[in-house]
Amino acid sequence: MVELKGEERLDYLLAENLRIIQSPAVFSFSIDAVLLARFVQLKKGNIIDLCAGNGVIPLLLSTRTNSSITGVEIQSKLFDMAQRSVSYNQLDEQIRMIHGDIKDMPQVLGHGKFEVLTCNPPYFVTPSKEEINPNEHLAIARHEILCTLEDVIKVSSQLLKQGGKAAFVHRPGRLMDIMTLMRKYRLEPKRLRFVYPRIGKEANTILIEGIKDGNPDLKVLPPLYIYKEGSTYSDEVHELLYGK
Amino acid sequence: MVELKGEERLDYLLAENLRIIQSPAVFSFSIDAVLLARFVQLKKGNIIDLCAGNGVIPLLLSTRTNSSITGVEIQSKLFDMAQRSVSYNQLDEQIRMIHGDIKDMPQVLGHGKFEVLTCNPPYFVTPSKEEINPNEHLAIARHEILCTLEDVIKVSSQLLKQGGKAAFVHRPGRLMDIMTLMRKYRLEPKRLRFVYPRIGKEANTILIEGIKDGNPDLKVLPPLYIYKEGSTYSDEVHELLYGK
Repeated sequence: MVELKGEERLDYLLAENLRIIQSPAVFSFSIDAVLLARFVQLKKGNIIDLCAGNGVIPLLLSTRTNSSITGVEIQSKLFDMAQRSVSYNQLDEQIRMIHGDIKDMPQVLGHGKFEVLTCNPPYFVTPSKEEINPNEHLAIARHEILCTLEDVIKVSSQLLKQGGKAAFVHRPGRLMDIMTLMRKYRLEPKRLRFVYPRIGKEANTILIEGIKDGNPDLKVLPPLYIYKEGSTYSDEVHELLYGK
Repeated sequence: MVELKGEERLDYLLAENLRIIQSPAVFSFSIDAVLLARFVQLKKGNIIDLCAGNGVIPLLLSTRTNSSITGVEIQSKLFDMAQRSVSYNQLDEQIRMIHGDIKDMPQVLGHGKFEVLTCNPPYFVTPSKEEINPNEHLAIARHEILCTLEDVIKVSSQLLKQGGKAAFVHRPGRLMDIMTLMRKYRLEPKRLRFVYPRIGKEANTILIEGIKDGNPDLKVLPPLYIYKEGSTYSDEVHELLYGK
């Protein structure tokens, strides 16, 4: 049994044998989080997910590995949803959720303790007060209010071992910034994939993975299209979401 | 009439009503140069092409604009081929070829005199003596022997007016370097297109355009595939090469 609060629902998490607590008023996971959870290359060793939201990435990663997974979320409502989803799925042994600020994690968890890191950070530079989402939960998840892209990348580098992998999802307009910051903080970009809504359109999402202290040698993977026609997912995305 | 030297041939330049002098022993233009000549966005004002080789990019650009075009090539054999091709096509009024080092051009031609700049630079960091191409002409065209990527981008920025456009073609492995250097020298990346040999393969070429002192706002254009099956060009590349 699970306690659902307010407008929360216990949704199925794709084709995985998992359920996830979501709330339209607070947070629902996005396809970007799913793409990131499928994109990152796992290796043996501890995994950490920053800006974990309702825990969608830790939950999805648990189906790909037996390694220990830590999720960090600053918003107490989301942390609480993630925590209850982990328990509902009986994954408390594998997934540890931490309620805290990612900027404190290198001190709390130690430097160089993780082999793999994921983060689906807030995408937007903090706008003026008028433009910002009046829903505080959504605003914090979408805007760089509590952490900037530079915070995310700096902390990621501190948390990773040498040779560890950091994977991020972001918008193409920030590609310059993300690559520059990754190099600045010694997370050399190695794999880059552009996500296009459909054939003939500009990319609207990037998936990028770097290796701490890796050699410069960037591979640009084949493009990923979300839809084939209308609102029908492409075969590849359908498979990423629901399996073969 | 045109004087051909050694193994030179007077080739047709695609579907354009142009001919170009080439030599398998010295230099033949690549598809990358053609893609760059099609990719760059032209605007009114003087155009310059650095590392011009046998002049393929100036010749192709002359079909898209009436603006004056300057080409710079350091190798005397290639400069001489380009010069003779320009004359054969009766384009001496529009295209001026300069025999010189691109690093001297800001001094020779002045700072901030060009609106549009193209460059298909040497792709490879200078390797050890054993690995380098024993053919000096090919080695200089392919390796950063006489100019580095940083030279190219620094000089490009100096030659362009504020708001001028610089377009480059390069390898994805150098994307990090090219973007970092473009930002360092105030050529903010604005348009990026990846070229894939065929569906399902990694990209092997990038086309990138920046604006001097432009605002950060990078667009990632739809992917370009060279082949559709076997050695048959994709419809888009066929059209780029030979027209509709």
